[in-house]
Amino acid sequence: MLKERLLQDISELKVHGRTTACRAPLTLFWTASGFECNVTGSEFWVELEVCFDVFEPWFSYTINGDWVGRQMLQKGRYWVPLFRGMSPERVKNVHFFKDLQAMSDDGNSYISIHAFRYDGEFYAVKDKELKIEFIGDSITSGEGLIGARKECDWIPMFFSAIKSYTYQTAQILDAEYRIFSQSGWGVHNAWDNNIHGAIPKYYKEICSLMPGAKNETLGGNQPHDFASWQPDFVVVNLGTNDAASFDQPEWVDTQTGKCYKMRRTAEGDYDIEDIKIFQQAVKGFLALIRECNPKAHIIWCYGMLGISLQLYLCEAVSAYMHETGDQFVSYLQLPDTTKESVGSREHPGFLCHQQAAEVLSRHIAQMR
Amino acid sequence: MLKERLLQDISELKVHGRTTACRAPLTLFWTASGFECNVTGSEFWVELEVCFDVFEPWFSYTINGDWVGRQMLQKGRYWVPLFRGMSPERVKNVHFFKDLQAMSDDGNSYISIHAFRYDGEFYAVKDKELKIEFIGDSITSGEGLIGARKECDWIPMFFSAIKSYTYQTAQILDAEYRIFSQSGWGVHNAWDNNIHGAIPKYYKEICSLMPGAKNETLGGNQPHDFASWQPDFVVVNLGTNDAASFDQPEWVDTQTGKCYKMRRTAEGDYDIEDIKIFQQAVKGFLALIRECNPKAHIIWCYGMLGISLQLYLCEAVSAYMHETGDQFVSYLQLPDTTKESVGSREHPGFLCHQQAAEVLSRHIAQMR
Amino acid sequence: MLKERLLQDISELKVHGRTTACRAPLTLFWTASGFECNVTGSEFWVELEVCFDVFEPWFSYTINGDWVGRQMLQKGRYWVPLFRGMSPERVKNVHFFKDLQAMSDDGNSYISIHAFRYDGEFYAVKDKELKIEFIGDSITSGEGLIGARKECDWIPMFFSAIKSYTYQTAQILDAEYRIFSQSGWGVHNAWDNNIHGAIPKYYKEICSLMPGAKNETLGGNQPHDFASWQPDFVVVNLGTNDAASFDQPEWVDTQTGKCYKMRRTAEGDYDIEDIKIFQQAVKGFLALIRECNPKAHIIWCYGMLGISLQLYLCEAVSAYMHETGDQFVSYLQLPDTTKESVGSREHPGFLCHQQAAEVLSRHIAQMR
Amino acid sequence: MLKERLLQDISELKVHGRTTACRAPLTLFWTASGFECNVTGSEFWVELEVCFDVFEPWFSYTINGDWVGRQMLQKGRYWVPLFRGMSPERVKNVHFFKDLQAMSDDGNSYISIHAFRYDGEFYAVKDKELKIEFIGDSITSGEGLIGARKECDWIPMFFSAIKSYTYQTAQILDAEYRIFSQSGWGVHNAWDNNIHGAIPKYYKEICSLMPGAKNETLGGNQPHDFASWQPDFVVVNLGTNDAASFDQPEWVDTQTGKCYKMRRTAEGDYDIEDIKIFQQAVKGFLALIRECNPKAHIIWCYGMLGISLQLYLCEAVSAYMHETGDQFVSYLQLPDTTKESVGSREHPGFLCHQQAAEVLSRHIAQMR
Repeated sequence: MLKERLLQDISELKVHGRTTACRAPLTLFWTASGFECNVTGSEFWVELEVCFDVFEPWFSYTINGDWVGRQMLQKGRYWVPLFRGMSPERVKNVHFFKDLQAMSDDGNSYISIHAFRYDGEFYAVKDKELKIEFIGDSITSGEGLIGARKECDWIPMFFSAIKSYTYQTAQILDAEYRIFSQSGWGVHNAWDNNIHGAIPKYYKEICSLMPGAKNETLGGNQPHDFASWQPDFVVVNLGTNDAASFDQPEWVDTQTGKCYKMRRTAEGDYDIEDIKIFQQAVKGFLALIRECNPKAHIIWCYGMLGISLQLYLCEAVSAYMHETGDQFVSYLQLPDTTKESVGSREHPGFLCHQQAAEVLSRHIAQMR
Repeated sequence: MLKERLLQDISELKVHGRTTACRAPLTLFWTASGFECNVTGSEFWVELEVCFDVFEPWFSYTINGDWVGRQMLQKGRYWVPLFRGMSPERVKNVHFFKDLQAMSDDGNSYISIHAFRYDGEFYAVKDKELKIEFIGDSITSGEGLIGARKECDWIPMFFSAIKSYTYQTAQILDAEYRIFSQSGWGVHNAWDNNIHGAIPKYYKEICSLMPGAKNETLGGNQPHDFASWQPDFVVVNLGTNDAASFDQPEWVDTQTGKCYKMRRTAEGDYDIEDIKIFQQAVKGFLALIRECNPKAHIIWCYGMLGISLQLYLCEAVSAYMHETGDQFVSYLQLPDTTKESVGSREHPGFLCHQQAAEVLSRHIAQMR
Repeated sequence: MLKERLLQDISELKVHGRTTACRAPLTLFWTASGFECNVTGSEFWVELEVCFDVFEPWFSYTINGDWVGRQMLQKGRYWVPLFRGMSPERVKNVHFFKDLQAMSDDGNSYISIHAFRYDGEFYAVKDKELKIEFIGDSITSGEGLIGARKECDWIPMFFSAIKSYTYQTAQILDAEYRIFSQSGWGVHNAWDNNIHGAIPKYYKEICSLMPGAKNETLGGNQPHDFASWQPDFVVVNLGTNDAASFDQPEWVDTQTGKCYKMRRTAEGDYDIEDIKIFQQAVKGFLALIRECNPKAHIIWCYGMLGISLQLYLCEAVSAYMHETGDQFVSYLQLPDTTKESVGSREHPGFLCHQQAAEVLSRHIAQMR
Repeated sequence: MLKERLLQDISELKVHGRTTACRAPLTLFWTASGFECNVTGSEFWVELEVCFDVFEPWFSYTINGDWVGRQMLQKGRYWVPLFRGMSPERVKNVHFFKDLQAMSDDGNSYISIHAFRYDGEFYAVKDKELKIEFIGDSITSGEGLIGARKECDWIPMFFSAIKSYTYQTAQILDAEYRIFSQSGWGVHNAWDNNIHGAIPKYYKEICSLMPGAKNETLGGNQPHDFASWQPDFVVVNLGTNDAASFDQPEWVDTQTGKCYKMRRTAEGDYDIEDIKIFQQAVKGFLALIRECNPKAHIIWCYGMLGISLQLYLCEAVSAYMHETGDQFVSYLQLPDTTKESVGSREHPGFLCHQQAAEVLSRHIAQMR
């Protein structure tokens, strides 16, 4: 006989990803955020509430660590079955993943979790010994990991939390992880020179890059309580969109009329003044991450879509270390996307993410 | 603006898998059966009707050949969204797969397809130049391709059409294919010596291994019209359960009280009389397949879960060829499951199916 | 200070491969035959005596199991250095391999080992717990494992003992092994229908396929003492040249004027009478192997260059088992050569041999 | 009938590697130096003259691009056969490689090439369109690419030119290449803090790191004529030994009594003054390479044995670029050695070199 219970009443449940303290319901903001539970019984359902204007959320889930389902979500509040017919006495580990990044272009796109329907008992999910926070752009949001190579629509269908290097790195290291990422964004500006597309500007709030009233109501604009979850490693995978912006037209701030553009010289080299702005942003972000995560080792990663800014990036990371004396920072080049490892939308595919996870997890393992 | 149209009215649609002539609705019996369409527009929904008593069906689907979703189905008649927000003018290839075999243990488990909701136009799906029919047991039903290695529940969740060697072989060869398979069954009897679990007994009907009144109503017990779809290759992957039955207790037919058992000698060898019964079944099935598919090349495959009956099997295939003069038959050993390539439920995993698809597609390519 | 000692005086040395009892010097007949020793000291030389008319022998050697050198040998008696400058106190395992099959086309092609020059001590080489004999054709002789893909000269340079599936299988299983093989030969006749190119005819002597007076003198025509080395497994990899002979012109025995040819029917199928002759040869060879190796498990392998005779081969193996009651025989299909795994001279390359070694060693491991 | 001809008389021959203008005989100094020729005929010999006190040279050779032999060389002047029995009319490409670095610890270790014995004709070897110079330490000298993992003797046997990332990169890109490398050495000092073990100090001469009178006679100390061979890419793979020296005892210059040591701080961090010395050496070497190779793209590689100095290295490379305006410089991290990819002597093995070659050749290909 199936019983129903509200999420807020299940203390054994583990919540993944930055979110508010609210559990009635639990709001999922970021990619790979969700819940994890250990539960007995033969059958298990989850009650979702889903809203969006343009970009519908998707979810994936694993049972005992293996990916079993992925689906597009419709609007509304409804029940979704996650397993049926399993041996009732065994404990099943169920992990539900939001398979889409926080969509800053749709202030109404969220998944909320209300309740469960099941016929067993919940058991506590143990904390992992290792915690990692990933900060990044489309690569970290898993864009291009689903879909045929020829696909070029920028739609939720082609984002994946589970096939990404983040998930795989966490699996290899048996780590718990969170993701803070936004497709197209950079350290100083977005791929199109939009200076609002700068990840550091939003780092201190729960999820302040989501616009509009709904996010205000949900609490996404509230300060994030860093003390509540201190990662052992912060992995920053940014710079790819900053590099791209040197080859894009200027961006005009319609509010101020001001124009912004990362420039190249007449010879085609990077303008050194603009490089300094980029480097300043890198140093500033490192300082901010350190402020929020006093004991974490910070790893700046780069290279899955080319290394054009690598030397400048390294210079900035070094400069930060010299200027602050902070020694718990490292730089790591990740494997580039190749003809064989590319996914959809000209983004790194599963093979490239797999290679990145191997390199990154080895780097982390050496420092533990 | 989304419009709705009944499946029966869409001539451009292609139906995959053995089924009846009825299209209002289309009933899906076998694993990997479904529909395929080429459609423009930004959004696409399908109206399903799902029923089951014990074993719920699942489905997977691909967009432009890449797997994008998989979900457990609930009972009832309802709409499921398959894509949203895509470039309207482009033609999208959508392929919907029943991700579960015909479940002979649940006479009420079916998916029916009624209608589509969309905002574009349908375009014809071209026939492939190569057609393959796969006949097999749990391996061909994709059992064990989903789920953690430790899983041992025999449930729909752990079956997959898309990760199987059948799908992969068809992809490599750009072929259209159908599957006729049942977990646990063999050429002469099932793994538990049940003589009703013999694939050949059901080969001439559309899907007569599904029991009960509903199947009668749906037309699954009707003769299959072989002329309507003649494969170029028939791949038989049977023998694994026949081998297992030598090590299982006898099976008692409760209707007749008769006992059945494939025996070993006192020394542990296969009883030669029982081997002859198995061989007779192999020869009989080859003759039956030939009768139904006069021009097909028949490939008997074996070995993904051991090769204990291989020599006897080859002997029977050879004998069939000698006795009939039929030269369009071959035998192929497929790669065995290893520690590295095993999936859930001690069945071949994705890696093993991948290796099998490579070997099999090369074998087929050499004969075209 | 280097000292010299005759091979015959070193009891700690292990001799690999079928050879005579003579140790003054030791004659190497077969591919992969040679010596193995455990020796301390910093430096190590071997005194060889090499002769040939047409086909010069090559050798390879390993130090502590890793391949360090391979060279063409000149005629004459001379010293060859194998290592220098090593830590004197450590025991080095040195394994010297004849890198060329017994060359039945050059009755004067041999390597003999006379003596050693060194500055340490010899230590006993322990017997391995597993012994394997490989019987085969060019595949087992490692033809095509060296050389660019375009090479087509049939010369010693392109044969390799060490890159072959035989060496690799032995490595995986930690086994001691011997090879009995001849390029172009089969069970009943050679690739060109020459009935003298039948491996079974020579199996009972040490190396009677080498023609001429020198072999007589060396003792190659003497009966082989099977009791002296009983393998646990006999792997037969024959049938590829028998298959080829169906597509070759007849061979005329110049002594008797008699013509020999394996025929195809007007329709292009194998002539069933000739198939029976082939099958009789298979059965006869199995009986002969059993007679000489009463306790060995016999594995007939086939498939690295196609499987055209597979069903007939299996039929013959089965028939042998039925007729004799011999249960210690199995059949195993090996991975076929592909575009990616081909070597020189259109023979299986290293990748194909690697795949074969994996499949074969797993098969053997399951039976131990 | 074999004829003999002096190397100096064969204009069609191509010489690889930095050497003097002398061709009577040709002296081989560096690893991977040697000759390449296109020759018809059935048989081919080379006349070598070999000398050494401690470290004997080895050579490897390829026929038509495939590695066929490798052997330790004895002292003296003698003939070595390279091929026999080949189709006389075909042109064979023969490439002879010194398989050992210039050995700065043995001023008497050289290979000289005097003459050839053959029965065909020589044909010109075309220049490749791409030229690469590799500058490095033991990694670039191929140390650890031969030998069991447990080996720890520092001897010529365990060096390989052909298995190295240099050879493989050249193969992938169809490039001609030269190597300038020394095991244990760095940009500023050797692994043991010896300041004479600094590669840049010897870059302008042909091979001035070889000590003693013989090198003087051979002309190794002469200035190198950079105009005679201008690479398109200079790949520098240095820094690994500089990093190691921070953890080694001081080195005392016995001539001056002066002590040298790269230091760590009390906290275990790199001493920033010593880092600056290292960085100065990097910048200085870049300037020197640029001076000698005005049009080459310079790639500084690092990482096959860890990345501990990476940020400092990048900082120095960046600084060089800022200070000089030189834009034809890039930095590339190479794949680290792992448990799976390690070779002998705790050095990168073949798998690691293969991975490095893939990454490096892709990087180069993007810039052409």
